[in-house]
Amino acid sequence: MSDDGPMRSPLPDYLTEVLSVCSKGAGATSDHIPELKNADPDRFAISLVTAEGVTYSVGDDETEFSIQSISKPFVYGLALEEQGFEKVLDRIGVEPSGEAFNEISLQRDTGRPLNPMINAGALTAHALVCDNATAESRVEAIRSLLSSMAGRELEVDDAIAASELNASFRNVAIANLLRNYQSFPDDPDDVVAGYVGQCSVKVNTVDLAMMAATLAGGGVQPRTGERIFSRSVVRQVLSVMATCGMYDAAGDWLSTVGIPAKSGISGGIIGVLPGQLGIAVYSPRLDEHGTSVRGVEAFERLSHDMNLHLMEAPIVSQSVLRRRAVQGEGDEAFTLLELHGDIHFTNAEGIVRAMVEDPAETPGVVFDLTLVRAVLPVGRRMLLEVIRRLHRDDIEVALVDPDGRLADPDAGDGYRPRVVSSVDELRQGVTGSPQ
Amino acid sequence: MSDDGPMRSPLPDYLTEVLSVCSKGAGATSDHIPELKNADPDRFAISLVTAEGVTYSVGDDETEFSIQSISKPFVYGLALEEQGFEKVLDRIGVEPSGEAFNEISLQRDTGRPLNPMINAGALTAHALVCDNATAESRVEAIRSLLSSMAGRELEVDDAIAASELNASFRNVAIANLLRNYQSFPDDPDDVVAGYVGQCSVKVNTVDLAMMAATLAGGGVQPRTGERIFSRSVVRQVLSVMATCGMYDAAGDWLSTVGIPAKSGISGGIIGVLPGQLGIAVYSPRLDEHGTSVRGVEAFERLSHDMNLHLMEAPIVSQSVLRRRAVQGEGDEAFTLLELHGDIHFTNAEGIVRAMVEDPAETPGVVFDLTLVRAVLPVGRRMLLEVIRRLHRDDIEVALVDPDGRLADPDAGDGYRPRVVSSVDELRQGVTGSPQ
Amino acid sequence: MSDDGPMRSPLPDYLTEVLSVCSKGAGATSDHIPELKNADPDRFAISLVTAEGVTYSVGDDETEFSIQSISKPFVYGLALEEQGFEKVLDRIGVEPSGEAFNEISLQRDTGRPLNPMINAGALTAHALVCDNATAESRVEAIRSLLSSMAGRELEVDDAIAASELNASFRNVAIANLLRNYQSFPDDPDDVVAGYVGQCSVKVNTVDLAMMAATLAGGGVQPRTGERIFSRSVVRQVLSVMATCGMYDAAGDWLSTVGIPAKSGISGGIIGVLPGQLGIAVYSPRLDEHGTSVRGVEAFERLSHDMNLHLMEAPIVSQSVLRRRAVQGEGDEAFTLLELHGDIHFTNAEGIVRAMVEDPAETPGVVFDLTLVRAVLPVGRRMLLEVIRRLHRDDIEVALVDPDGRLADPDAGDGYRPRVVSSVDELRQGVTGSPQ
Amino acid sequence: MSDDGPMRSPLPDYLTEVLSVCSKGAGATSDHIPELKNADPDRFAISLVTAEGVTYSVGDDETEFSIQSISKPFVYGLALEEQGFEKVLDRIGVEPSGEAFNEISLQRDTGRPLNPMINAGALTAHALVCDNATAESRVEAIRSLLSSMAGRELEVDDAIAASELNASFRNVAIANLLRNYQSFPDDPDDVVAGYVGQCSVKVNTVDLAMMAATLAGGGVQPRTGERIFSRSVVRQVLSVMATCGMYDAAGDWLSTVGIPAKSGISGGIIGVLPGQLGIAVYSPRLDEHGTSVRGVEAFERLSHDMNLHLMEAPIVSQSVLRRRAVQGEGDEAFTLLELHGDIHFTNAEGIVRAMVEDPAETPGVVFDLTLVRAVLPVGRRMLLEVIRRLHRDDIEVALVDPDGRLADPDAGDGYRPRVVSSVDELRQGVTGSPQ
Repeated sequence: MSDDGPMRSPLPDYLTEVLSVCSKGAGATSDHIPELKNADPDRFAISLVTAEGVTYSVGDDETEFSIQSISKPFVYGLALEEQGFEKVLDRIGVEPSGEAFNEISLQRDTGRPLNPMINAGALTAHALVCDNATAESRVEAIRSLLSSMAGRELEVDDAIAASELNASFRNVAIANLLRNYQSFPDDPDDVVAGYVGQCSVKVNTVDLAMMAATLAGGGVQPRTGERIFSRSVVRQVLSVMATCGMYDAAGDWLSTVGIPAKSGISGGIIGVLPGQLGIAVYSPRLDEHGTSVRGVEAFERLSHDMNLHLMEAPIVSQSVLRRRAVQGEGDEAFTLLELHGDIHFTNAEGIVRAMVEDPAETPGVVFDLTLVRAVLPVGRRMLLEVIRRLHRDDIEVALVDPDGRLADPDAGDGYRPRVVSSVDELRQGVTGSPQ
Repeated sequence: MSDDGPMRSPLPDYLTEVLSVCSKGAGATSDHIPELKNADPDRFAISLVTAEGVTYSVGDDETEFSIQSISKPFVYGLALEEQGFEKVLDRIGVEPSGEAFNEISLQRDTGRPLNPMINAGALTAHALVCDNATAESRVEAIRSLLSSMAGRELEVDDAIAASELNASFRNVAIANLLRNYQSFPDDPDDVVAGYVGQCSVKVNTVDLAMMAATLAGGGVQPRTGERIFSRSVVRQVLSVMATCGMYDAAGDWLSTVGIPAKSGISGGIIGVLPGQLGIAVYSPRLDEHGTSVRGVEAFERLSHDMNLHLMEAPIVSQSVLRRRAVQGEGDEAFTLLELHGDIHFTNAEGIVRAMVEDPAETPGVVFDLTLVRAVLPVGRRMLLEVIRRLHRDDIEVALVDPDGRLADPDAGDGYRPRVVSSVDELRQGVTGSPQ
Repeated sequence: MSDDGPMRSPLPDYLTEVLSVCSKGAGATSDHIPELKNADPDRFAISLVTAEGVTYSVGDDETEFSIQSISKPFVYGLALEEQGFEKVLDRIGVEPSGEAFNEISLQRDTGRPLNPMINAGALTAHALVCDNATAESRVEAIRSLLSSMAGRELEVDDAIAASELNASFRNVAIANLLRNYQSFPDDPDDVVAGYVGQCSVKVNTVDLAMMAATLAGGGVQPRTGERIFSRSVVRQVLSVMATCGMYDAAGDWLSTVGIPAKSGISGGIIGVLPGQLGIAVYSPRLDEHGTSVRGVEAFERLSHDMNLHLMEAPIVSQSVLRRRAVQGEGDEAFTLLELHGDIHFTNAEGIVRAMVEDPAETPGVVFDLTLVRAVLPVGRRMLLEVIRRLHRDDIEVALVDPDGRLADPDAGDGYRPRVVSSVDELRQGVTGSPQ
Repeated sequence: MSDDGPMRSPLPDYLTEVLSVCSKGAGATSDHIPELKNADPDRFAISLVTAEGVTYSVGDDETEFSIQSISKPFVYGLALEEQGFEKVLDRIGVEPSGEAFNEISLQRDTGRPLNPMINAGALTAHALVCDNATAESRVEAIRSLLSSMAGRELEVDDAIAASELNASFRNVAIANLLRNYQSFPDDPDDVVAGYVGQCSVKVNTVDLAMMAATLAGGGVQPRTGERIFSRSVVRQVLSVMATCGMYDAAGDWLSTVGIPAKSGISGGIIGVLPGQLGIAVYSPRLDEHGTSVRGVEAFERLSHDMNLHLMEAPIVSQSVLRRRAVQGEGDEAFTLLELHGDIHFTNAEGIVRAMVEDPAETPGVVFDLTLVRAVLPVGRRMLLEVIRRLHRDDIEVALVDPDGRLADPDAGDGYRPRVVSSVDELRQGVTGSPQ
């Protein structure tokens, strides 16, 4: 991390250094189809996007390639959104297979694919999208979803799709097996055609890092602010990436790299650190497992150098409480609590504890939610309970909540705190309105 | 969450509610040995300890029981600390077994146990503690470790140990197999005797939650502040708990509950949410997998109701920056940046970005680290780089760092910022000292 | 075994008794396709054909049904005859799978089907028949083979074939997998169409017992005398039936029934006792493994009651020597050794020993091979060696060998015994002709 | 097969040739224990014993070595004799494991060893011998059994036993697992001690071939005539040898060699061809599976050159009928049927058919059983039925049965044929005695 210019972030320098030290020349491009075989083997790009949308990107980050298996977690998420957890979990398991990506890996008796990251599960997830639709409409729905996450319109590479369709004996085999177990009612050849289309959407690493950041941010596209997936779907998708995303060495990847991830045969890998970052790497030389050699290396370096590991999460207990101050005087005095980020159990607990250990000594308490991004259900329950108890102790409560993060703030006993849009507005008096 | 008293935390009320709604009477105490069989089947306790040591506890939380398999992650951590990663990983794998806890689960050819949470791996980890020691000294070392984490002196229940030793045909089998593969040089019977002693340490749920919180806090006992495990060991232990802790349904537990966990046959379960919480539950009625029925139920409820899930981490990007303010005037003016919590990559990135997007317009910049708990290597590198670049832009930097969180702050070009113990001290002038 | 008529074989009575005591009503016809579902569930037939062509048959032995999987051993034999052992063994293994018939059961890495009795192996064997042929020509070749063994022209049931083709998702899956591993170059759909045709050949139990007897007799159709398979192919086919024919309980079937066998989903089972018998049973009610309930029961009874078990072979050491007598007088005297059956090592050893322990005391020795069925290579070598040594001891040898069982009898040292067509011919003098 | 001496068997010459052509120097002696390691690696012996006791033996056939795993089939047989099929089959399965000899291979849930040829099954079989006995008494019972089959007193090599006991971690492991599943009530260490003793009985190849011939002859020691095992036990033992004897390639061994076999780590292999031969080979250089390199080679050659293959059994249908002749005149005339060998279903069927197709035209029929070795139950039933039907047709029947092969010949309707000791005795008249 060294530079002679004026103050700017050291991150790009660091990423460029990673580009330069990863091993050159090891591995070969996929020989699955000519289009992959002929990729420029020396392309290399790394892109990072934070959960808040800040992007750091180096190398060949404008080179496009087919998304391949990296589409799997997103299509699984789409199936969950469309069909609900019960139906999807009934048809696709969540257990690691300990096997290569193209293994059959169906459960005995039921024929249920072990997880959605292997081809059998991915084909089933694909077939669940857009009930009773044609391959074309499923591919379009998926292209549209991926575009929303990338923040730009993506395209399907028809040449790749056509070429892959001719090399799909194994996927046709799996689709027929699934059809035999009634995992879906569709024609197996049609499902494979749609799946091949899904895999042929063209992306670059910035697109992929943006998609990954959408998962890191709990389902909200960090630039457009669009909610793509519900929190519960994101939770499910990331859990499955953690245990099944890197195929046959789930435990090794999770302990050494510690980033839920997914790789594709065209040379891309994405990683997601919940609440923190989306990462994408591209380098088309593959190892014997069909995974990008420098992609794995880059992830190992990023995890090690930048202490990015799921199990090394920051201490967050009081992080939500940005500032506490007493404002106003006499009867108008109030304790201002400025919150920020997401309100989870652990940081809500910090707020509760702050109020218990150091009770407000003013007639009013104001929670400023202006910088709050999201209030989880548990955060809502705990905040409302604090409000209820403050009111019971004869303290008036007000919320500064311009974006309605704590909509309909009923404390449970009929008491509703006053809600305003800015602290300035508060000067007019802090009063809740019982109903 | 309802209560009529003066302001106090709603947490205990909520936990008490969980106690009351979990199913009664299902399952039976372990018939492994009489001592476990005769446990009061209706005992039930839940304890939570935050990474900062705040404890919430309800039910029979003073009831003691033998720790059993819950000792496994801690003894694995001890082996890693004592013998190093290379030696331990050479002898014990990290892959989920997809099998019951007492399966053999050794890798073909090498005989390496698949992971340290199954008995084969736990016996090997036990044998690695205190090289060349007797069973007695290994048990004492482990009892002492567990006591440090619990924050009180724990005892071995000799009656339980003696009783288990008589029912250990399977463990004797496994130990002989391991000895055959030269996993350790010790007498197999002696290793089993020590392992049985390790499993017989008596604990209650508060002890266990404190141990879990030690892992949640990155290896530091939250009450005593003692560092028990290095960060890298904690990372490893939690990774293994995530994929292997709940035996044969790793994917299901991780997606539905989302808390790295470990259960024991006496009825306890611990869970760890990194950076947030340690959790312990005790209820001795077991299901057919040998896991506490109400323990699992309580974890499912806590995860669901309190949005405690590894993949639902709070957005942390700016959480480290507690306050930014300009203080002093003219040449004495400085921008004060008050940091708190742990300094990770993601929040260090937030500091960097704050300085890039909104450059300091004062001749000095002061980083107040008083509330910082730990600075990770990446945080250190990024902070020092920011200091170097500020200095290059002719801005003087000072650190308020009473606990030496950023010890030896060499910016890399010889520049060293001034270090003081309090903001008050700063009034004497903000000057770094080149060396 | 009881009857009031004049002397006739008790066998049919016994078989009729077996028909009457096997459990009625258990199991159901296959629900694989309507044509099988609608079979009359109460049909029951047993047919036995000895290696010499004697037939015993009772019950519904004129009822025709589709041959289904019982075609597998014969088509495997045909592939071996056409393509040779090396090529076939390279593509299809011979190991029991311990799994159900429709399991995939391919070897890791190579994709080689474990054995030719599971569908994967049977599809591969089918594809190996008539290189580069169409499905139609393969089906015709197989129909023709089966007809030769049955001793009558069999027909393909087109309605069954068409119906099965619509329920072949699993077989299409397997064929695509095999194509993916390059087990064959053909179009997978075409291979399945041909395989389904093969399975639709219509047979009755007498046909099947005749086919089984062809294997029991070492490859020679017992009625027509046509050699259908070479001895080495028969050996291979029977070995595979012994270990893989009854699917997932090879050891249990071999120890309790002890008859190499093959079942089909239409309700038939064949069994072969080498050198002794071919057996066929038909009853379309199936158990949960897809095997005929009464078929299994009948085989158990036949094996138990009739001591038919591969491991309970008769003592054969001297069985080939039917008669020894001195004929003629003085210089014309010769020792006549009348042989019969097949000449194997063990019975040839009996001949050798007879000559060693009780040397001929006549100037000539005559081996009468009129009743000999076949002379194995080892038998030929041993007989010729005996002839060489007799000649060395100045004894003249002659062969009565009207069918040329010991063709070109060169003793190795140039001596060739005289060969005649009948004992009567011998009266003209017993003289070998040196060359 | 060439020799210049007077008439003698070519067999020894052939076996000597096999000795000379098998590969020299490949493989190494077992490094399991020093006693095995130090065996002379170049010893080589082949012994054959026919079911009737004729012995052919070449090479180092007086060299003694410990029997090791070759004891397994015999001890399994002993357990079956002592405890009955039900109890033994309940504790030890009969399915091939597809795994190496020292794999655990226990069935899920029950812990039942898959078969008696792997160590787990062999330890269980050992423990079943001599209920509630000490290790010493079990070893003595087994030594005594093996001695009866060898036809001489064998000894236990105490040095080998002691040495092996020190290298038995794996067997101690397996015995503890079995004890855990309650496969036996004995102390696991004691069972291992006994098992090691069993493996240390000293034998040479002639001993082993004699033991194998005892199985080939249906359980009767071919020299002493002592019945060691019942026919049903022999059937069971040979079935298990066929599918499980050569470990992890049951199908390959059965199809290429076709001889039920068992190997031992000291370098021996036995093979049994039912009704024909016992074979033993010794050469202590082992391959990577722990099997004698030249032992396997010799078996392959013997099978190939001598057409010794289970599936290439001789045609036996009429082999039992040695001679048919009319003797006496007028009312005294009788048809003499001279039988020999064992009377099985297939050859009994030949007798029946002979009587049906070519009815006796004399007032009496005499069956001469003098040369008959054994009459199987089915043979007895069929002979008696023929006698009943002959009597119903007013033909008097007599048996020449000096050894009581057809004891208590009640035809079922009260008719009992006359029984005499020799044909000469018959001159006194052929009359059955109704009762």
